Amino acid sequence: MRAVVINCTLKRSPEASNTEALATVVEDELRARGVEVESIRAVDLDIPPGVATDLGEGDPWPAVHRSLLNAEILILASPTWAGQPSSVAQRVIERMDAMLSETDDEGRPVAFNRVAGVIVTGNEDGAHHVINNVSGALNDFGYTIPGQAWTYWNRGPGPGPSYLDSREGRDWSESTGRAMASNLVAAAEALAAKPIPAPPS
Amino acid sequence: MRAVVINCTLKRSPEASNTEALATVVEDELRARGVEVESIRAVDLDIPPGVATDLGEGDPWPAVHRSLLNAEILILASPTWAGQPSSVAQRVIERMDAMLSETDDEGRPVAFNRVAGVIVTGNEDGAHHVINNVSGALNDFGYTIPGQAWTYWNRGPGPGPSYLDSREGRDWSESTGRAMASNLVAAAEALAAKPIPAPPS
Amino acid sequence: MRAVVINCTLKRSPEASNTEALATVVEDELRARGVEVESIRAVDLDIPPGVATDLGEGDPWPAVHRSLLNAEILILASPTWAGQPSSVAQRVIERMDAMLSETDDEGRPVAFNRVAGVIVTGNEDGAHHVINNVSGALNDFGYTIPGQAWTYWNRGPGPGPSYLDSREGRDWSESTGRAMASNLVAAAEALAAKPIPAPPS
Amino acid sequence: MRAVVINCTLKRSPEASNTEALATVVEDELRARGVEVESIRAVDLDIPPGVATDLGEGDPWPAVHRSLLNAEILILASPTWAGQPSSVAQRVIERMDAMLSETDDEGRPVAFNRVAGVIVTGNEDGAHHVINNVSGALNDFGYTIPGQAWTYWNRGPGPGPSYLDSREGRDWSESTGRAMASNLVAAAEALAAKPIPAPPS
Repeated sequence: MRAVVINCTLKRSPEASNTEALATVVEDELRARGVEVESIRAVDLDIPPGVATDLGEGDPWPAVHRSLLNAEILILASPTWAGQPSSVAQRVIERMDAMLSETDDEGRPVAFNRVAGVIVTGNEDGAHHVINNVSGALNDFGYTIPGQAWTYWNRGPGPGPSYLDSREGRDWSESTGRAMASNLVAAAEALAAKPIPAPPS
Repeated sequence: MRAVVINCTLKRSPEASNTEALATVVEDELRARGVEVESIRAVDLDIPPGVATDLGEGDPWPAVHRSLLNAEILILASPTWAGQPSSVAQRVIERMDAMLSETDDEGRPVAFNRVAGVIVTGNEDGAHHVINNVSGALNDFGYTIPGQAWTYWNRGPGPGPSYLDSREGRDWSESTGRAMASNLVAAAEALAAKPIPAPPS
Repeated sequence: MRAVVINCTLKRSPEASNTEALATVVEDELRARGVEVESIRAVDLDIPPGVATDLGEGDPWPAVHRSLLNAEILILASPTWAGQPSSVAQRVIERMDAMLSETDDEGRPVAFNRVAGVIVTGNEDGAHHVINNVSGALNDFGYTIPGQAWTYWNRGPGPGPSYLDSREGRDWSESTGRAMASNLVAAAEALAAKPIPAPPS
Repeated sequence: MRAVVINCTLKRSPEASNTEALATVVEDELRARGVEVESIRAVDLDIPPGVATDLGEGDPWPAVHRSLLNAEILILASPTWAGQPSSVAQRVIERMDAMLSETDDEGRPVAFNRVAGVIVTGNEDGAHHVINNVSGALNDFGYTIPGQAWTYWNRGPGPGPSYLDSREGRDWSESTGRAMASNLVAAAEALAAKPIPAPPS
């Protein structure tokens, strides 16, 4: 089983990413369960704006798109800025929009029978909003969202520390992240064993 | 297989409900697939506010709660008011909140291995917001949200007709609703065949 | 100048309300600035569902509606349940929906030249989502939302203490609440001195 | 009085922008009221990701930031992608985040006594979600949101035409847009005549 984790931090490598730090917990649990994990730091790719799968020469998206089609599990990890998913996360979602009209041999949207989860960090309130809206977009594309397939960290009220600056509350975020990995793998296996067929037209 | 459809219209029976009209399309498709469907019009029950499963004598919620635990599929159907899920829908979600800490014999949240979908009608824009937030709450409780497990109808821009007042756009809402039924049943079957285990503690 | 504060807790009087506790800070600051403050605990009124201003005999809403029309400042205070505004808050918003089509002598929506702010408490993440969606609905009805006219308290990540259970982070929530009161009063005074005219038809 | 309109379409000039087409209606009404209007098509600027006002050599943001500080009125115009504000809109919001800690001579956030509104177009449902979240972020930074300071166009249910492809519903979107211009100008004038003072610390 394969997973792609797209870290949507605004910070380019090699700057430390809070979102990556929490994502690593989930990745480790996936690997412990035998999942092959590919990590992508989207900001490093300078993904151009658009809603097609291939915007032509130099477009880094087609390679990400191949990774998505190669993986049963997608995790989108985003920081919270002004209470919203990052511009990098929304860029990824926009480029995925084309997947809505891409179908497999049986006429199913290509995201069918794949599962997705969301990881959020922030220095303020907003995680559930990010989780719900990113999950909602991915579900719209065809991904199944297993129960409790997310984790987050922030420490309010008001602007506070970042994940890497504080140990407070980490236990909850980490154990929720390990449960997330378990739920994603189990749901992906269930759908692999008994796939959702093409919907009636 | 059993489904519960909770219609969260603000209108008491027997007043015509736009939301019910669209829900009926999905219910018919569920029945055509052999699913036993129970329909609940929540506003008729006068569900009191609170976040416990049983608020005492006269509380109609425990019966709804039993129906939820008896069904592999939950559909929450809501009108859109001021762009938001109805107060009746939010009341249902609040009463479901207690399910977060109810577990089965294997220590799994009781909503695990159940699936949920959302139906929305409105006289204005707001459906995806309602879908994402209702799905997000149900996912938080443990429900799995199969890919494309929703349908909606509204006709913008600005305040427009209600579902029962217009034939425009119904084909899309109805075929999306039938696909929703197909996806819910298939995902419920997959999870029944190969359930998500209790997450690691 | 007059303000109405509607506390949308799920708990009936005289049970202690976390939301009321934070609202009191804002109310005290309003009173210190010479504002007459009316507090309404909506759940005690058993407001029936609907979208008209008067649902007939026994409907407590017309009295609340009169209070709204009598006040230059509205504060809606809500707990966070499943990351959303409470069902009581949404009930209030639904009943206010009729104000969209109520106009004054100059043809302006009755909410014009009134200002609104939002107070949120919770035992988990979700405050900005509640603030944005409640503010958005009130703005839709015609209320002006002054800059930084809100405050909140929660303490994540994950389910945590309630406002009354913890002293952590209160200073920020309280000073933000006092700023909120200042901003609401100043904006209400500016609009009273130089009102927004009826928009072009 | 000056206004800045930031068009957050994903399409580079000179490609036709649906969002620009609706924005033009609002801009014309602003100009008819004597407002000097500057239009910025953000995607053409290739604004780099970050949350500081100046990211160094070649950063186009400082010029936009100067325009913002020079204008009493800000309009953010965004398409809807996957039900969300565009990645370009979120990029603009992220770069504005630094304004939270920039204050004027009297210690007020620099956005104080400025007003903001939102224009949304889309080929599907989602406008109010975009309006509420963009308005919410700008309000967080200190902008006042006058009553009914937005307009939108989409035509559901499901994926439909774009604004430039259809004449349906335009009258509502355009008259709502003219009202938006009127409300923004009036509120900006009221705040100019009687500014909101620095909040208590």
